[in-house]
Amino acid sequence: MRAAEGGGYPKGRIRREDILSAAVAVYGEAGYHGSSLREVAKRAGITHAGLLYYFPTKEALLAAVLERRDAEDSEREQLDAPPGRDVLAHFIALAEHNVTHPGIVDLYSRLAAEAVVPDHPAHDYFVRHYRLARESTFESFRVLAEQGELRDGVDPAAAALTFVALMDGLQVQWLTDPDEVDLVATLRHFLDSVLTKPL
Amino acid sequence: MRAAEGGGYPKGRIRREDILSAAVAVYGEAGYHGSSLREVAKRAGITHAGLLYYFPTKEALLAAVLERRDAEDSEREQLDAPPGRDVLAHFIALAEHNVTHPGIVDLYSRLAAEAVVPDHPAHDYFVRHYRLARESTFESFRVLAEQGELRDGVDPAAAALTFVALMDGLQVQWLTDPDEVDLVATLRHFLDSVLTKPL
Repeated sequence: MRAAEGGGYPKGRIRREDILSAAVAVYGEAGYHGSSLREVAKRAGITHAGLLYYFPTKEALLAAVLERRDAEDSEREQLDAPPGRDVLAHFIALAEHNVTHPGIVDLYSRLAAEAVVPDHPAHDYFVRHYRLARESTFESFRVLAEQGELRDGVDPAAAALTFVALMDGLQVQWLTDPDEVDLVATLRHFLDSVLTKPL
Repeated sequence: MRAAEGGGYPKGRIRREDILSAAVAVYGEAGYHGSSLREVAKRAGITHAGLLYYFPTKEALLAAVLERRDAEDSEREQLDAPPGRDVLAHFIALAEHNVTHPGIVDLYSRLAAEAVVPDHPAHDYFVRHYRLARESTFESFRVLAEQGELRDGVDPAAAALTFVALMDGLQVQWLTDPDEVDLVATLRHFLDSVLTKPL
């Protein structure tokens, strides 16, 4: 199939990573459902057949885009640190990273909203993604509660769900009206309101 | 144009309201961008030309759908009550209503995520919608602060932004994984954590 690509692209240039980056750009503009592999191929400067060599279906491409983003986030922000104060600080760092990358936040928000239906190809990803995020923050709030660092009356499970939902909700309001919404400060304010010592 | 509709529909039956309900259903399945007036017309049991008589463009139909929803919400839940405890209680009632209407929540979440870009036909609607929601809850938190009913250290503006973002973020997580996410209880828990007396 590679031989049939034509177009004079040297083998090394047409890379998997280029396709993933093109996919992020196309999804960001048209949404996942509004996008096509042809459009992604065009954006990546590769033939449709050439793209199919790397990603045989739309679903395979989407899965690869989401997995790449999670892997990048997790490695950069050390989200798998031992539960406690550090993990919450790393989520704030992730938010700080996100506000300098509106394109990927836009993609994520749209996909999350599209993927609520069980037959969407990213549905299982988002079920897992949200469960992991809630679990990770729950464990951190639980550890902080044991150490007496959670305020009286704050339930670790509710605080975890609230924190994850707040990140998502703030992202959409921030993307809609960036000058009116301070995403990072609001997340910090929430954490400071449930912790006994500021983060 | 009505005369050209054909199809044997009696005049009274092809109603504006039917078209709006059909639009909600189609948007909910395909997203706004993934939908077409032809598809909405088909769902409403009306010809394409017949639909254009009521809504000449996709944008006009979308605006009418969003305005109908806000008018219904506002009237049912009395969201324009004087600022204070009642307004917050009405937002909780709105959330209770929403969890029995997942289709409209799904539509709203998708559109909000699609409409973050300034050239989306619902962008101005969402800028206004979010500003009004923040303002209304801010005024309520401010009044409660004056009455000594907001806990020390809680900033009315941050609490307002948090509350609105939390509603949105919880909706997406709840739609994704309904058995794991208690939307209404989590909103109540947040309000109880910032107010000195439970709602």
